[in-house]
Amino acid sequence: MTTPDSQPVPSTATSDPLRILITGSAGFVGSHLVERFLNEGHTVIGVDNYISGQVSNTELFLEHPRFTFIEADVSHGIPYEGEKLDWVMHFASPASPPHYQQFPVETLMVGAQGTQNGLELAHAHGAGFFLASTSEVYGDPHVHPQPETYWGNVNPIGVRSCYDEAKRYAEAITMAYHRSRGVNTRIIRIFNTYGPRMRPDDGRVITNFVHQALRGEPLTVYGDGSQTRSFQYIDDLVEGISRLMMAQYHEPVNLGNPDEFTMLELVNEITLIAGRQVSKKFERLPLDDPKMRNPDIILSSNLIQFKPSTPLRFGLSEVFKYFSSLDNDQ
Amino acid sequence: MTTPDSQPVPSTATSDPLRILITGSAGFVGSHLVERFLNEGHTVIGVDNYISGQVSNTELFLEHPRFTFIEADVSHGIPYEGEKLDWVMHFASPASPPHYQQFPVETLMVGAQGTQNGLELAHAHGAGFFLASTSEVYGDPHVHPQPETYWGNVNPIGVRSCYDEAKRYAEAITMAYHRSRGVNTRIIRIFNTYGPRMRPDDGRVITNFVHQALRGEPLTVYGDGSQTRSFQYIDDLVEGISRLMMAQYHEPVNLGNPDEFTMLELVNEITLIAGRQVSKKFERLPLDDPKMRNPDIILSSNLIQFKPSTPLRFGLSEVFKYFSSLDNDQ
Repeated sequence: MTTPDSQPVPSTATSDPLRILITGSAGFVGSHLVERFLNEGHTVIGVDNYISGQVSNTELFLEHPRFTFIEADVSHGIPYEGEKLDWVMHFASPASPPHYQQFPVETLMVGAQGTQNGLELAHAHGAGFFLASTSEVYGDPHVHPQPETYWGNVNPIGVRSCYDEAKRYAEAITMAYHRSRGVNTRIIRIFNTYGPRMRPDDGRVITNFVHQALRGEPLTVYGDGSQTRSFQYIDDLVEGISRLMMAQYHEPVNLGNPDEFTMLELVNEITLIAGRQVSKKFERLPLDDPKMRNPDIILSSNLIQFKPSTPLRFGLSEVFKYFSSLDNDQ
Repeated sequence: MTTPDSQPVPSTATSDPLRILITGSAGFVGSHLVERFLNEGHTVIGVDNYISGQVSNTELFLEHPRFTFIEADVSHGIPYEGEKLDWVMHFASPASPPHYQQFPVETLMVGAQGTQNGLELAHAHGAGFFLASTSEVYGDPHVHPQPETYWGNVNPIGVRSCYDEAKRYAEAITMAYHRSRGVNTRIIRIFNTYGPRMRPDDGRVITNFVHQALRGEPLTVYGDGSQTRSFQYIDDLVEGISRLMMAQYHEPVNLGNPDEFTMLELVNEITLIAGRQVSKKFERLPLDDPKMRNPDIILSSNLIQFKPSTPLRFGLSEVFKYFSSLDNDQ
């Protein structure tokens, strides 16, 4: 994400070695952070309770000399007793509708108690605290694209509120610790992100489409397929996170890819990668499903020269490879 | 609040004796609930940590044979070991801007952990759970008046978010316990309420005006005084709560008085009650101050025949009497 003529933007790649604790380390995004930080020479402590993380994502790093793992539910405390941390990064939470609707209370808790336990740990260590928030805080937005200054349109008692309100709460308590206790905080609002190590059952559209294509099934399109989504490849997100850690900015920052695709356009991309015709079946939109969401990334572009650059076709083919290898393992 | 020709609406006044635990029992609203329930023959367990409640509000009832008090921070648990409860009513929280901005983390915690501890206690006892939410969940609304179906316009990271987002979270977790664990829940959104036993330092406009009038000081008007507020007298709120307990309805219900007054009209009412001319001084509106908020009470009117009927002039004179008696005690 750097241009040839520019100085590299400060990121964890150019930082002295750091000691970083990551909650949700066995999750999709968490596991990519672990990988990046280990590759850059940092020390990583992963924490997960596997409520939606995957054991295989921990096993990838267990042999690494600079990785340690703690199996724990961070909503009940983070049992870390080691050396002084530089960062506590809170990425633990069920994040896909089928998971958080299966675990509504646990999702609410990891947003509240989990976030607070992370903030307390960061405060005790004089470490930075990095919160993974979400574009879901914008709900079903009335403003397009969504800048960070948009306050959102969330149903506080809807079936998605266990996730949306938990994340809004997490932002509020992060700001409270920053303002009243001086914790060095970061907040990102992650828009739709995809890549290898997504859970096969996360219910997200790319996961579903790739699985259905691999199995020769028709692709399930909700509504009429005209609703759009923006898709950010995991490597672009991780680069944005790594840069934001080195920036002194405490309010929320959008990280997403503004390129919009309708569901029907996505079907076409999948068809191209699958290398054969795939059929579609249409189903009703789920309750409270946001019709459209798209990041305004002017802030992150100015602040950290964030520029998601991975083409959808490349990213999708990586996902194809990943899910193919899983299918072959079974 | 009943009309002469109608049957009395079911409420706690006509209920068999109940055992009711009230968090925030030493607060303004909590203490009026304690009084009403004791007068109706119920047994009340009050819980407060006095972060914003007042010891004098506990002392009022300490001699009563059906009242017991537990001093505890409900965010850390509700240490009740007594007989089976019929209701857990969660009214604990700093509720005025100067208080919750002084205790942002505690306010967030009593909305999250406090609410959850109440829900767990209710679940364990097979009791109902009654959540005091607030019109602040509507934030700075774009819809007037606000029906319960309006999703609100709240700044998740603003200086009021420690209260607003805590209450939105409290609603979300209450619905989660209702939906996934079968707890018999109620949620009210309380609009501006006033009456005796408000804290003298709560920063609310009626409190400030009455104090200033009693002391012969000019009344502080923020902005140009054209912003409106609706004011609900405490007895009307308590009647609405008492009725809603007997209704089987689990989604949020507005309780407020839709009659609107501008700040300048309120000054005129205060002048009338004070019985002499009072002057005004103008100051800038505080950050994130909502410009206008007004309850749509069609739902509560239909559901429980809610009809706030106390005239502002009567209510204000009760507040005058209360604060006069406090001044005389000093």
